[in-house]
Amino acid sequence: MPGNKAIAYREPGVVEVVDIDYPTFELRDGPGVNPANVGRKVPHGVILKTVATNICGSDQHMVRGRTTAPPGLILGHEITGEVVEKGSDVEFLDVGDIVSVPFNIACGRCRNCKERRTGICLNVNPERPGSAYGYVDMGGWVGGQAEYVLVPYADFNALRFPDRDQALEKIMDLTMLSDIFPTGFHGCVSAGVEVGSTVYVAGAGPVGLAAAASAHLLGAAVVIVGDLNPDRLAQARSFGCETVDVSAGPVGDQIAQILGEPEVDCSVDAVGFEARGHGADASTEQPAAVLNSLMEVTHAGGSLGIPGLYVTGDPGAATEAGKVGSLSLRLGLGWAKSHTFTTGQCPVMKYHRGLMKAILHDKVEIAKAVNAQAIPLEEAPTGYQAFDEGAAKKFVLNPNGYIRTS
Amino acid sequence: MPGNKAIAYREPGVVEVVDIDYPTFELRDGPGVNPANVGRKVPHGVILKTVATNICGSDQHMVRGRTTAPPGLILGHEITGEVVEKGSDVEFLDVGDIVSVPFNIACGRCRNCKERRTGICLNVNPERPGSAYGYVDMGGWVGGQAEYVLVPYADFNALRFPDRDQALEKIMDLTMLSDIFPTGFHGCVSAGVEVGSTVYVAGAGPVGLAAAASAHLLGAAVVIVGDLNPDRLAQARSFGCETVDVSAGPVGDQIAQILGEPEVDCSVDAVGFEARGHGADASTEQPAAVLNSLMEVTHAGGSLGIPGLYVTGDPGAATEAGKVGSLSLRLGLGWAKSHTFTTGQCPVMKYHRGLMKAILHDKVEIAKAVNAQAIPLEEAPTGYQAFDEGAAKKFVLNPNGYIRTS
Amino acid sequence: MPGNKAIAYREPGVVEVVDIDYPTFELRDGPGVNPANVGRKVPHGVILKTVATNICGSDQHMVRGRTTAPPGLILGHEITGEVVEKGSDVEFLDVGDIVSVPFNIACGRCRNCKERRTGICLNVNPERPGSAYGYVDMGGWVGGQAEYVLVPYADFNALRFPDRDQALEKIMDLTMLSDIFPTGFHGCVSAGVEVGSTVYVAGAGPVGLAAAASAHLLGAAVVIVGDLNPDRLAQARSFGCETVDVSAGPVGDQIAQILGEPEVDCSVDAVGFEARGHGADASTEQPAAVLNSLMEVTHAGGSLGIPGLYVTGDPGAATEAGKVGSLSLRLGLGWAKSHTFTTGQCPVMKYHRGLMKAILHDKVEIAKAVNAQAIPLEEAPTGYQAFDEGAAKKFVLNPNGYIRTS
Amino acid sequence: MPGNKAIAYREPGVVEVVDIDYPTFELRDGPGVNPANVGRKVPHGVILKTVATNICGSDQHMVRGRTTAPPGLILGHEITGEVVEKGSDVEFLDVGDIVSVPFNIACGRCRNCKERRTGICLNVNPERPGSAYGYVDMGGWVGGQAEYVLVPYADFNALRFPDRDQALEKIMDLTMLSDIFPTGFHGCVSAGVEVGSTVYVAGAGPVGLAAAASAHLLGAAVVIVGDLNPDRLAQARSFGCETVDVSAGPVGDQIAQILGEPEVDCSVDAVGFEARGHGADASTEQPAAVLNSLMEVTHAGGSLGIPGLYVTGDPGAATEAGKVGSLSLRLGLGWAKSHTFTTGQCPVMKYHRGLMKAILHDKVEIAKAVNAQAIPLEEAPTGYQAFDEGAAKKFVLNPNGYIRTS
Repeated sequence: MPGNKAIAYREPGVVEVVDIDYPTFELRDGPGVNPANVGRKVPHGVILKTVATNICGSDQHMVRGRTTAPPGLILGHEITGEVVEKGSDVEFLDVGDIVSVPFNIACGRCRNCKERRTGICLNVNPERPGSAYGYVDMGGWVGGQAEYVLVPYADFNALRFPDRDQALEKIMDLTMLSDIFPTGFHGCVSAGVEVGSTVYVAGAGPVGLAAAASAHLLGAAVVIVGDLNPDRLAQARSFGCETVDVSAGPVGDQIAQILGEPEVDCSVDAVGFEARGHGADASTEQPAAVLNSLMEVTHAGGSLGIPGLYVTGDPGAATEAGKVGSLSLRLGLGWAKSHTFTTGQCPVMKYHRGLMKAILHDKVEIAKAVNAQAIPLEEAPTGYQAFDEGAAKKFVLNPNGYIRTS
Repeated sequence: MPGNKAIAYREPGVVEVVDIDYPTFELRDGPGVNPANVGRKVPHGVILKTVATNICGSDQHMVRGRTTAPPGLILGHEITGEVVEKGSDVEFLDVGDIVSVPFNIACGRCRNCKERRTGICLNVNPERPGSAYGYVDMGGWVGGQAEYVLVPYADFNALRFPDRDQALEKIMDLTMLSDIFPTGFHGCVSAGVEVGSTVYVAGAGPVGLAAAASAHLLGAAVVIVGDLNPDRLAQARSFGCETVDVSAGPVGDQIAQILGEPEVDCSVDAVGFEARGHGADASTEQPAAVLNSLMEVTHAGGSLGIPGLYVTGDPGAATEAGKVGSLSLRLGLGWAKSHTFTTGQCPVMKYHRGLMKAILHDKVEIAKAVNAQAIPLEEAPTGYQAFDEGAAKKFVLNPNGYIRTS
Repeated sequence: MPGNKAIAYREPGVVEVVDIDYPTFELRDGPGVNPANVGRKVPHGVILKTVATNICGSDQHMVRGRTTAPPGLILGHEITGEVVEKGSDVEFLDVGDIVSVPFNIACGRCRNCKERRTGICLNVNPERPGSAYGYVDMGGWVGGQAEYVLVPYADFNALRFPDRDQALEKIMDLTMLSDIFPTGFHGCVSAGVEVGSTVYVAGAGPVGLAAAASAHLLGAAVVIVGDLNPDRLAQARSFGCETVDVSAGPVGDQIAQILGEPEVDCSVDAVGFEARGHGADASTEQPAAVLNSLMEVTHAGGSLGIPGLYVTGDPGAATEAGKVGSLSLRLGLGWAKSHTFTTGQCPVMKYHRGLMKAILHDKVEIAKAVNAQAIPLEEAPTGYQAFDEGAAKKFVLNPNGYIRTS
Repeated sequence: MPGNKAIAYREPGVVEVVDIDYPTFELRDGPGVNPANVGRKVPHGVILKTVATNICGSDQHMVRGRTTAPPGLILGHEITGEVVEKGSDVEFLDVGDIVSVPFNIACGRCRNCKERRTGICLNVNPERPGSAYGYVDMGGWVGGQAEYVLVPYADFNALRFPDRDQALEKIMDLTMLSDIFPTGFHGCVSAGVEVGSTVYVAGAGPVGLAAAASAHLLGAAVVIVGDLNPDRLAQARSFGCETVDVSAGPVGDQIAQILGEPEVDCSVDAVGFEARGHGADASTEQPAAVLNSLMEVTHAGGSLGIPGLYVTGDPGAATEAGKVGSLSLRLGLGWAKSHTFTTGQCPVMKYHRGLMKAILHDKVEIAKAVNAQAIPLEEAPTGYQAFDEGAAKKFVLNPNGYIRTS
């Protein structure tokens, strides 16, 4: 049985490479594992040899100490891998298949899964609907920033790539199917983006850039991305987006300079609860700043897609309200404009097949859009730090050398 | 030319019967008329002799002095009437037709109207998208709590009843088509109510009761209505709803007693920004109380329909945040449950034809559900007061004696 | 191991009670079993002791000899039962649960199942997408008109009733969830039935009556049912439908007498390929008669829901075209009216949970609507014959005495 | 008052340039004008000086003598023009505006228009729902292949371009908004094309090419176009489509060579009732050939978009069935695959604004895709002939010299 190197959360600001057990078809006790899940049998699972596994902005919430994640929690919910073992109940996957794994773990058998709401599966997290690998309060499924990882309900969850060689050739794009590409796409779909739309995406991190690329793919006429970080804005411009520097003045004014009017058809919040203020307030955390800004710049009748994470509790919040996940929202404004707000984890499975086909047939270059860079598993700590400091990059870990880097 | 008695807002707490001019095909200056609308020609309008015109909870916001409505503003946006004159551009209505008028005024020619978003028409209110008769900040179209009223863009806005006698016979039901029946129905539709749903409606005022009746009509399995007012709760029970007394303890617990689980599939906010606290806080105004409660009791994946009015400014609010329409919302909770929130004025035209057919073919008794009572125009002041004091009734003004009361 | 009495197709016009093997967790060879399915392991299955199993109009296609069904094929795809054994992979069902089984067998793991298209699952029928119990060309899954039956992918397929006693009390209604209630409902949904619609349902057999009851449940203003059979038309009238005798003259004229106009908003074909002519042609088979008639009577912009079965081959058809499933359709008429046509097996799982809740909370009396009658398994041959002769009844087999008949 | 040169249908195979009256705000008698429309006042109309007006494949049905179009009927329903006069009821257009006119004439006031079904407006054609300029049986509105044309209900129908200079610069693209671009797009939307779809478009005439370009714009992974005409297939390949020569063997086999499987996700019929056979039958007219082929090559669960015209009567049809618009369709096959069929005129207004924005922001080059070529009005007869002979071109008439040709 091979060893299994993985990335663990140690303490605020620190992740480390550790050796963990090779997976078996059972969820064993460990840091962050929900007691009710300990000992759970997983005959429906496959063990993957990890091909690519990415560092995600939502990992940063844990690493920054904004959550109750315990030390030793194995990180990683963006997983692409090769099947090396399969449980007795797995019928439609084979050893050797290369598959993309949605970050949402879903049973495929509950009401929500049957209604395509795989982001809030009722059977995988004893605490609440919804689950993910390597994440606090999500049931305790071991993270995939590791050489090997167990994927439960694999026939349901995994998306098999049709051709192994083609998959490895496009792996830097395909690895985005596990989370950020569908997440950005979901933000656009729930914002009502369609052919000819004008779109504002708040946030030029990887999810924001993926949303912007998705908006282009959906036929948007103009895609505008807002952020504070000049490198990330430059990255957005590299694939045809307009940009807004939110520290430089009202977003509406800047949109008006681009479009001739201060409003867009659709908007996407790709920032979430760690939002900073806009304009002069840009240096302080203001969790409602993005949503209030979106209500201002979205035209009456428009929709707001909100893939950016908002949490039920935030021990590190600046205010009492923030600690229980409350925001001071100008809902009266949104109401006057008949806005619709769609929140929550992206149900990846709803989108990953179509996006895979778009990648395989060269309709989109998502890796370029998010500026993906592969690094060895061992360099994950450096990657986490660079990402936290605002690098305009998406780091892809390469634990088993599948990704050819030159 | 006949006289024209109407109901005017005088000062906080006071409405009065006044004599106003008989309408012409022009919007003339007057209390609350937007300067940019003064002198606007209305060849596309009809003049209606009012058959029925109802007092609405949203009128109360003005009458309570919670808005900047000027003295003398003629009230009334729930209008059913008989065509007595038509402008030169009216092609498909005739004198003698009895019609229902959506409270939203809409041009039928702008992008939003073409997309069925008649609640946010771009051409009728110079101030912002969306308009209504007899309402502050809505363009200044003269209210319909009067003997006669002008209805612009009449071919587009008015819904003609197929048969005059049948219409007058069912007038107490049909008068609800101008606002509260579609509004309650829209709340349910945007909450995702469908056959078999469990539904919680916050608020047992007329809109809440209309939402509850709509939920039944849509095939909901269980409809639960919450309020503080025992008479209104009794009214809800009179047509097959379950009820929750929000002053008596957590809503979720009471729902659990009814359903066996503390959550419903769908929920509707029929209260809006003048919400009071729940449980022990029930005596104080807490504008976010209803929405926060709905996030708690709506199951993961559910939707919140929010027809209850939230305003962009509330001079009479208890807090600075409230004065600009900000609410302290537990959005983190909604996000964790992947909730969708649909806000705004109901686009009445989307629903009134189907609801009319449901009334005419005896599929729903909306007048009974909301406990409609006809009163003479002259008694409007008494009606406003009784309604403000919590009467479990919907008052229908009868300015021209069309409604046979016994 | 108990014995297992079942109903087998013998020859055109003849079914018989036979003894078959008690099920195991494997699909064994037998009449009508696809060779590629022989020996298939079913660890994901449960064995049900049948509580109720109904005779369906589509069984009649086989029994009349209109298909290539082999002698000995065990019939029955409308199954409700009690779990008596479960396979090793079944996680969310327990022995003692009473469950409704969709007639469509679905894996829950293929693209179509994930997209809620369980009527055309890709993994259960080697011949083509889509499968059903006890049906020719559907993979060979053994029918459920038996004392015991194997249900594959049970965690996915079965709908558990929340309370055993309540379930047995309402069993005559709940048994309709396996096929005809969702099928009729799907016809209405795909025909666009909504609150206030006028609806025409062609066919007053059990599916037509279920469609009519569904239309009422969806809030339709007027539901009109057409057929040749006076008893079935009387049955339709018994729960508030209007009726049309298609042998008595043009359908549009009769609709005009009811509605004042010759067209409806929505229409449902609950007849299928064994349609007879209308008016004077009512005695001969005219497979396109129903669809052509629906195009005539459906208003421009309306939709046709087509749950009635059309087949790819019909050895007993009167014409060469009919033998390959071709119909002479007046598509030009439908095109001029911008009609939409939705065909295919109902994906039962999309609807059965909501319909179950509607039954359990007394929103609908589907057993009454279709005139359900329980009979012993042994009387199935008589039931088939009576049904074939046009009895206005839905026969429910009661193989294990769960149904209390008095 | 200026003169008004126009293109008239003369006899089968012949169109000619004629002088007609300059339009007034009234629909006067003339060839093809419905008696009930004669004398109709049009105060809601504008008179356009034609900027561009295209020859359409559906014009060819008339010109080939396949309809009852009378001699002298003025052709042309694809109209872009400059407002030179406006009726008294026109409020939101001004002289000098350049506008695109949907080929469907719609009142904006009937139930269908309010429901966005502008292709089947109830108020403009006395004969049946739906109307168009310059078309037989469509009410008699004078065609736009002329120097000047009257557009009724102009506030509702016309789409104003935001900037005159920009509009004239992109006029060869924008002229496609009046019909074929939305029509092709509608075919794709109703076929369910989305990001990642594989799509088969039957027909490489202008509508087929517009559908193919639309599929790309919607993010389709692979777009395959089928036709008999090698030039048109070459044109399809020029913008990234794959092609199938339907005379060269089964369509499914050719699709399999491209995709590795014989089926696509979505398919579009851009041919209609004048379809020819496939394979060896390619030289004879077989009106059901395309639809039957699409059922074969569309995967189970897919949808067929059918913008290609099917008629209620076809005097020139080869068979009796064809003469009344009946087709021998293999509906049994479609039913087995749960296909959905969407027919009818494209409701242009649903799409033209978004497509305009896509053109103005360089997201699509529709003129290139359909190989648009401007010719003088006087050369229309040559254009008609070349188009009828299969030229892989879309001819744009330039009656007033707005289009700069070099």
